[in-house]
Amino acid sequence: MRNNVIVGQSGGPTAAINASLAGVYRCAVDMGVSKVYGMLRGIQGLLEEQYIDLSEHIRCQLDEELLKRTPASFLGSCRYKLPDFKKDSAVYDKIFAILDRLDIGAFIYIGGNDSMDTIQKLSDYAAVIGHPTKFIGCPKTVDNDLPLTDHTPGFGSAAKYIAVSMKEILRDTICQAPAKGSVTVVEIMGRNAGWLTGATALCRGEDCEGPDLIYLPESIFDIEDFKAKISQLLAIKSTIVVAVSEGIRVADGRYVCELGADIDYVDVFGHKQLTGTATYLANYLTAQLGCKSRAMELNILQRAGSHLASLTDIQEAFLAGSAAAKAALDGQTGQMVTFQRISDSPYRCETALKDIHQIANGEQCVPLEWIDEANADVTKEFMTYVTPLIQGELQPIMVNGVPRHLYAPKQLLRK
Amino acid sequence: MRNNVIVGQSGGPTAAINASLAGVYRCAVDMGVSKVYGMLRGIQGLLEEQYIDLSEHIRCQLDEELLKRTPASFLGSCRYKLPDFKKDSAVYDKIFAILDRLDIGAFIYIGGNDSMDTIQKLSDYAAVIGHPTKFIGCPKTVDNDLPLTDHTPGFGSAAKYIAVSMKEILRDTICQAPAKGSVTVVEIMGRNAGWLTGATALCRGEDCEGPDLIYLPESIFDIEDFKAKISQLLAIKSTIVVAVSEGIRVADGRYVCELGADIDYVDVFGHKQLTGTATYLANYLTAQLGCKSRAMELNILQRAGSHLASLTDIQEAFLAGSAAAKAALDGQTGQMVTFQRISDSPYRCETALKDIHQIANGEQCVPLEWIDEANADVTKEFMTYVTPLIQGELQPIMVNGVPRHLYAPKQLLRK
Repeated sequence: MRNNVIVGQSGGPTAAINASLAGVYRCAVDMGVSKVYGMLRGIQGLLEEQYIDLSEHIRCQLDEELLKRTPASFLGSCRYKLPDFKKDSAVYDKIFAILDRLDIGAFIYIGGNDSMDTIQKLSDYAAVIGHPTKFIGCPKTVDNDLPLTDHTPGFGSAAKYIAVSMKEILRDTICQAPAKGSVTVVEIMGRNAGWLTGATALCRGEDCEGPDLIYLPESIFDIEDFKAKISQLLAIKSTIVVAVSEGIRVADGRYVCELGADIDYVDVFGHKQLTGTATYLANYLTAQLGCKSRAMELNILQRAGSHLASLTDIQEAFLAGSAAAKAALDGQTGQMVTFQRISDSPYRCETALKDIHQIANGEQCVPLEWIDEANADVTKEFMTYVTPLIQGELQPIMVNGVPRHLYAPKQLLRK
Repeated sequence: MRNNVIVGQSGGPTAAINASLAGVYRCAVDMGVSKVYGMLRGIQGLLEEQYIDLSEHIRCQLDEELLKRTPASFLGSCRYKLPDFKKDSAVYDKIFAILDRLDIGAFIYIGGNDSMDTIQKLSDYAAVIGHPTKFIGCPKTVDNDLPLTDHTPGFGSAAKYIAVSMKEILRDTICQAPAKGSVTVVEIMGRNAGWLTGATALCRGEDCEGPDLIYLPESIFDIEDFKAKISQLLAIKSTIVVAVSEGIRVADGRYVCELGADIDYVDVFGHKQLTGTATYLANYLTAQLGCKSRAMELNILQRAGSHLASLTDIQEAFLAGSAAAKAALDGQTGQMVTFQRISDSPYRCETALKDIHQIANGEQCVPLEWIDEANADVTKEFMTYVTPLIQGELQPIMVNGVPRHLYAPKQLLRK
């Protein structure tokens, strides 16, 4: 048996991805592994022999706690797609030579759909050449769109950030009530899957009505119907808040954010600009209804807002990392850790392993029956599913008024 | 002596403005006032006889705690400027008739520069007609631009939100390192005063280098120098983050966000669009240097992010509200509560009263000597001033995964 473990992070970062890294590290150390290496900037960095010894960065239990509270990919990330090894095996030869030199028995990759493609290709190649290293995927994505798992670590914290921010936005908007009414359109991440957009409904409660309309990318967006709904709402309310996915599309398949491209829309540098979805809709409403309007994007803070992490999410991310390391060290390969829900209330989930070939490059969207009949809200079933995932808080460790993070590897800060 | 107190909120909301409302209420009740009324949507609502009895909304000590944690103006807000009473006294007659009918001895208005104009005009008018109601201003603004006070409640919480968000943005950006480098330009509120933009530096610490460049509106923005600085930074770093005030201007006085207006820039509805400051600069850098770029706005969450409120700020906001009520009930009028700093470390501040005529419509910007020589950062003196204001956290009261707020008055939710 080889002595060492290597772990990498890939794709868009989340608030929970480092908890998975902490889980891999803790499990590997507890299982007696000699060295736990971290590849810097994923497989792309590994190809340039960029890696660190994690024990030099996680020097004590406090560091492990800080790592769980540090947003974004501690090891850096990449969006690198391995070639088909039947066509180009040179890159595989290079990777496996490095794994041999580092005496790597287990290779863990924390990421989303594209990262699972990497695990699939590496494990397939290892099988073909009879290489002993085991390859296990650990799921991560704020979009929650990985198949065969109840949900994905990273989603719960993003959902919580979005729900809390939406609640604060709603409270802010009711302060001012312009005579012609105002509409705030909030654009949420998730081009094909509406999990995060639907999560805006989590702000509803005895003290908050929640967004007035919620549009997911899974159903067709009807702009005339949207205008009619806003018009009806403006008759009874002065301030309206709408949540839209960045990826909503009209019946002919075009994204709403592409509708603005019909006429010249060129910036000072001569570049054609795509208006954002929220900006397009806000301008549309003002032009059509004369109301005030405002567009907002929650931007990368949706995925980086670790000060609002869900404790459930962080604990599950840690668990997923541990389960991935354990599986690989136990001799499993070509699998991804998944979550299987046992019950909604009390919430219980356990981990399982699924064949990576069933997962890589797949996509799990919101079921259409979880979108309400008027196509502008989520159903009770959606809420039952998502509510447990944002429960609990992981208190940031505050120093001088701001959360303390684990020191970033110096290699990420300078060229 | 008249029996009752009325309080209103005006101008842009903050995360701390309701702590001042709680302070007014607590002090008035403790001083034996019969009724504490809240005007809905400020003086504009009062003119329509829209007000509530606060005891029906703050029914117990828990409600008071929730009020302190509820963002935005609980009573609603307005941006209404009273006419000169020498030219138009009808509106004054109406207001004072309502005050007489409600038996109001003390009138407290929580707001910024414009709201202090209201206090000035009402107290002047009362003096002219010999009316017994006392008028006191309670300061509030995220912009921190009120004169004669060390700082203004609301600023500390916004500064803390911005510092924490900036730290998370910085961590996110270092994950990916595109070959040609990337620049993220973050636009911060504050058109004339750079206090909030400077507050981005508060994320600096042993674990965070902070933004690479910080541009305040108080100094002239030199776009060629900006390009040169970015170019130098791209030689040593792959990812750069810049904080800019929405109000930075070039030497000829134009706002940077107006520079894009030189050519046609018209949306699908035929409206001329002003690019945001950050968007303009991000596009400029990509066009000039070929790097990737991204523009971000923190938007209204800067002022509404009560889940990240500064405990120091909330306590001082409460104190300011109490001091305002006490001053009015003690017979003072035509004054605003201010903060006078006793020492930086340990931080100590006390309240005082200043003549409203010296404050209304004034503006306190960042002193030029607190901007560094290269015009792209703040000095140590700025940090010494601002650091105490973001210290401490007021834990949100979490219910079902999101912060609980005090129920909003129903009148604000429906027409």
